Amino acid sequence: MRVLGVDPGLTRCGVGVVEGAPGRALRMLACGVVRTPAELEVADRLLQIERGLEAWFDTHRPELVAVERVFAQHNVRTVMGTAQASAVAMLVATRRGIPVTLHTPSEVKAAVTGSGRAEKAQVGAMVTRILRLDAPPKPADAADALALAICHIWRGTASQRIAAAVASTRAREYRP
Amino acid sequence: MRVLGVDPGLTRCGVGVVEGAPGRALRMLACGVVRTPAELEVADRLLQIERGLEAWFDTHRPELVAVERVFAQHNVRTVMGTAQASAVAMLVATRRGIPVTLHTPSEVKAAVTGSGRAEKAQVGAMVTRILRLDAPPKPADAADALALAICHIWRGTASQRIAAAVASTRAREYRP
Repeated sequence: MRVLGVDPGLTRCGVGVVEGAPGRALRMLACGVVRTPAELEVADRLLQIERGLEAWFDTHRPELVAVERVFAQHNVRTVMGTAQASAVAMLVATRRGIPVTLHTPSEVKAAVTGSGRAEKAQVGAMVTRILRLDAPPKPADAADALALAICHIWRGTASQRIAAAVASTRAREYRP
Repeated sequence: MRVLGVDPGLTRCGVGVVEGAPGRALRMLACGVVRTPAELEVADRLLQIERGLEAWFDTHRPELVAVERVFAQHNVRTVMGTAQASAVAMLVATRRGIPVTLHTPSEVKAAVTGSGRAEKAQVGAMVTRILRLDAPPKPADAADALALAICHIWRGTASQRIAAAVASTRAREYRP
């Protein structure tokens, strides 16, 4: 499956595309950021993010999209912009009929490093290792977007396995 | 000028269209809400809001759009949804090349009641009076959207007057 991860932000919106199948090695197809200038009005920045993301979707045709779930943290102004950028990412995907899943930062960190409290550098290092890259992807927003895509493939696999196990148990229980 | 006001929200997104010119009586063209069911995923709700707003824009062809500026308040979960719904409203307008202005709740209250701390009922009463309606528009989100549109027309007029005054002063200063 091909997953596009989005680390939403008004100034830098990280994007990463990962392809992989359950139990096989994952492969990075591309990563980068959609940037918008801080001098612009928010409405214009959101439009630029929409256009930038549309181009990523057109080029890479993802089957699934993973977006970071935004929480209200310390910096309230930043959080608003992040929430708005994430809304644009969700819209672009849903308009194309592509399923969107939200993952919290802790879920992503735990998926790629084993700890929900890992530092940014550790996430970058693990993304580099998992995708067998020569160097950590830059900027960090691009690495975070790849981590989201990896998290989604791995968590999806786990929940698919659990669902399959439940289904097979039920099938056995109901066998006459 | 014809202004579409949007009081953003995931559950109820208020919309109100007001037509008016500086110094003349204002007229309500329409008001209502775009609703989305709480059971849906956020991404699907945002898509429904986009479609709902597109229909309002198609029907009423506003020249200007006023959206409530979202602040982080007490209820953090609600604020996130509000920020995301406002992003959709800004996108729909900007994509059509329609200028968007954000007004804070206090600016809107002050514009229609004279006090930035007015209660919701007072805003509804003044919207009813200003637009010469038979009864306060319901739900309150629709009344708030109309208040936003009124605020925009009145504030716009004031700032246009100031801009015109500044321009004429400059013109006089630079006269040889």
